[in-house]
Amino acid sequence: MKRLLFALFMVPLALFAQNSDSIMLKKISDDIFLNGKCYQYLDYLTNRIGGRLSGSPQAAAAVEYTFQVMKSLGVDTVYLQECWVPHWVRNDKEIGIIMNSKMIGQQQVKICALGGSVPTAVGGITADIVEVTDFAELKKLGKAGIQGKIVFFNHPFDVTKISTFDAYSEAGKYRWNGPSEAAKYGAIGTVVRSMTTALDDTPHTGAMGYNDSVPGKIPCCAISTKGAELLHTLLKDDPRLKFHLELNCEKLPDVRSFNVVGEIRGSEHPEEIITVGGHLDSWDTGKGAHDDGAGCVQSIEVLRVLRSLGIKPKRTIRAVMFMNEENGGRGGDKYFELAKKNSEKHILAIESDAGGFSPRGFGLDMNASQKNRILSWKPLFLPYGVYDFEHGGSGADIDDLKNIGCALLGLHPDGQRYFDYHHTPIDTFDAVNERELKLGAAVMAMMVWLASEKGL
Amino acid sequence: MKRLLFALFMVPLALFAQNSDSIMLKKISDDIFLNGKCYQYLDYLTNRIGGRLSGSPQAAAAVEYTFQVMKSLGVDTVYLQECWVPHWVRNDKEIGIIMNSKMIGQQQVKICALGGSVPTAVGGITADIVEVTDFAELKKLGKAGIQGKIVFFNHPFDVTKISTFDAYSEAGKYRWNGPSEAAKYGAIGTVVRSMTTALDDTPHTGAMGYNDSVPGKIPCCAISTKGAELLHTLLKDDPRLKFHLELNCEKLPDVRSFNVVGEIRGSEHPEEIITVGGHLDSWDTGKGAHDDGAGCVQSIEVLRVLRSLGIKPKRTIRAVMFMNEENGGRGGDKYFELAKKNSEKHILAIESDAGGFSPRGFGLDMNASQKNRILSWKPLFLPYGVYDFEHGGSGADIDDLKNIGCALLGLHPDGQRYFDYHHTPIDTFDAVNERELKLGAAVMAMMVWLASEKGL
Repeated sequence: MKRLLFALFMVPLALFAQNSDSIMLKKISDDIFLNGKCYQYLDYLTNRIGGRLSGSPQAAAAVEYTFQVMKSLGVDTVYLQECWVPHWVRNDKEIGIIMNSKMIGQQQVKICALGGSVPTAVGGITADIVEVTDFAELKKLGKAGIQGKIVFFNHPFDVTKISTFDAYSEAGKYRWNGPSEAAKYGAIGTVVRSMTTALDDTPHTGAMGYNDSVPGKIPCCAISTKGAELLHTLLKDDPRLKFHLELNCEKLPDVRSFNVVGEIRGSEHPEEIITVGGHLDSWDTGKGAHDDGAGCVQSIEVLRVLRSLGIKPKRTIRAVMFMNEENGGRGGDKYFELAKKNSEKHILAIESDAGGFSPRGFGLDMNASQKNRILSWKPLFLPYGVYDFEHGGSGADIDDLKNIGCALLGLHPDGQRYFDYHHTPIDTFDAVNERELKLGAAVMAMMVWLASEKGL
Repeated sequence: MKRLLFALFMVPLALFAQNSDSIMLKKISDDIFLNGKCYQYLDYLTNRIGGRLSGSPQAAAAVEYTFQVMKSLGVDTVYLQECWVPHWVRNDKEIGIIMNSKMIGQQQVKICALGGSVPTAVGGITADIVEVTDFAELKKLGKAGIQGKIVFFNHPFDVTKISTFDAYSEAGKYRWNGPSEAAKYGAIGTVVRSMTTALDDTPHTGAMGYNDSVPGKIPCCAISTKGAELLHTLLKDDPRLKFHLELNCEKLPDVRSFNVVGEIRGSEHPEEIITVGGHLDSWDTGKGAHDDGAGCVQSIEVLRVLRSLGIKPKRTIRAVMFMNEENGGRGGDKYFELAKKNSEKHILAIESDAGGFSPRGFGLDMNASQKNRILSWKPLFLPYGVYDFEHGGSGADIDDLKNIGCALLGLHPDGQRYFDYHHTPIDTFDAVNERELKLGAAVMAMMVWLASEKGL
């Protein structure tokens, strides 16, 4: 009794609030570890539906599935936002062959088309292949060195960077811009070293974009890092090495698709909206487990736990399955367009699109006052291993919301394993650990609850 | 005034020191990511040698292998510390069968003997099985409820604890003490729910210990968590359920074995010793990859990187492969005994025995002044995702060194996945990620270098 009185008199009110907050956060965490469904949702999304490239039947199935799941949670409303998405298909020919200069020795290597690539001519193309490390080398070789050849961008992925995403940002430009940069000098194709920390025999796909100001769209593929090492070694011995590339991917007309939105209306400030989301589409070569089934099912988990605990949030909470992040961003565009058109007040958006690994922090993209608010909650997250609020970076699908004053957060999980799986056939359900996935969902739900209770 | 000037002069110096330290730490990290060998060492230890239970031929092979590897690094000296270890063998009979009370229905479940268990009688034992959640329930049932029966300890592993090691500590007593506690009331065998966060069909082994003051050693096994759930459900319907248990494990005479020590002598204070280690033995059912091949190869990596960078440490650095952590601790005992006998001055010991996952911090067990020193280096570790210096816990093999004033550290990696693998057949090489393993080795090497440069 004495102890209780002492506590009542001595503990400042702020600490008392902090304490009751931490009790609620623990409830959220406990419920997700004990009753969470995100891991089962992910099982369905990856094993029953599979890879979900925009425009594919699987993408449509994922829209239907997540719509039904959110409906089943009994949230206030679940609805679709129509958007038209690019429809690029890989098809069945992906052949890469290294041939020596005398054309008498050859070795097949694992390649895959980059998303958005044009096909080669039927029967493929065969040409001298020239290796460059970066755009400076490409420029130096110029037309004289490049014309009529295939360019091999062998830019190393910097494994010494502790943030693997920093290394990805740095290397990614050769995948995205490489084809048009090479076309400037008359290249007829490009082969890009896969963007990964691993030395593996799996090509990592990903989007590329043609620069409209450069005439000529040339076919482009990723080669596995082991294949790149082999090519590099063989080129040293035989600089007139040839490469044969055959792709029959194609771009079809745009397809009607959707974002899926599940919403719990706020009890006190329904007009203030908090968005939590991931992207529903994925690359076709794998099952889109870490990228980004994880972010989707974690976002649905946020709705589930609020319902499960009977929490009536003060502000409106939306879980959004964004369509087409990988090769167009049309879902994110549509979400922003509607937010603007309807003069919605978005106070916070969180995206989880860095894998279903143990969370370590949030990336912050917001103004100073919003930042102060978020940072004041930091101690509440420390017991969950979430300590890092120092970095930027939110998410491609929510980025535009900044233009209407919305604070942006990106969930930052441990990134050491991410690029082992990224955009490959091994991005599958079994690569995701249930506890790590749930812990990520839990800290997202905590952040949503705090923002809903306290505003921003 | 003078004082102020002095202070102004000193601040930049301190910053400069911090900066040159961080440059060295980056060199260590870079070298490990680019040239590190710990992942290859682990491949050999797990795939070429395998599970290394004390007294086994594999344990002897691991002694020889790590001796040779450290020799090949050209450190000043590599030597063995003889210790005699328990020799318990599992043998080939591990049968668990649930039978209904009418003895007409039966179902085999996956079990494995706990390390140290006595065998059952030849042909096994069959008896009523009674479920308890904890020791209080056991006591309540008393002799009347227990005599002649098999006790099923179905204590849940608390999945809501973010620190899985806390949950393990709490549940572990039923594995360690359960058999003797049950024997007090006349039980003839025990079945213990596996200590894991996962719902899996793999029994998790581990050591148990008989209490010498309790007469009667009874056989004991672990049952998988799925098996435990099944048993629990069936017992509800049929409280007179029977269980058949057959084990032919046995305790053989102690075997001569060794710690393996690789040493780089200090250039300025050779008498001050810094130990970094893991335990070389492992359970027999798996390959001992996370537990604790990881800690061993990370410790060898510390020596390798110092040699690779041409660093001459001021203080003596030892990488120690401790023998017999799992079921006796004789290697740790021997290391301490020799340290005392030789009046060695041990200033810091680091153990890595919590898996080869991404590091998050160090557990600290030391006096206040040592703690202040370590905490002053904390900012240097933040760029490597190592932020948590708040918890205790070092390592079973180094624990005794505290008695001679040595500061103790335990590497604390992310623990969400650890108990999926712990003491099971799936604790294999492919469960370890190369970057996570290397990052752990890097931060251990950084800590060793700082302590060697600056003292403690």
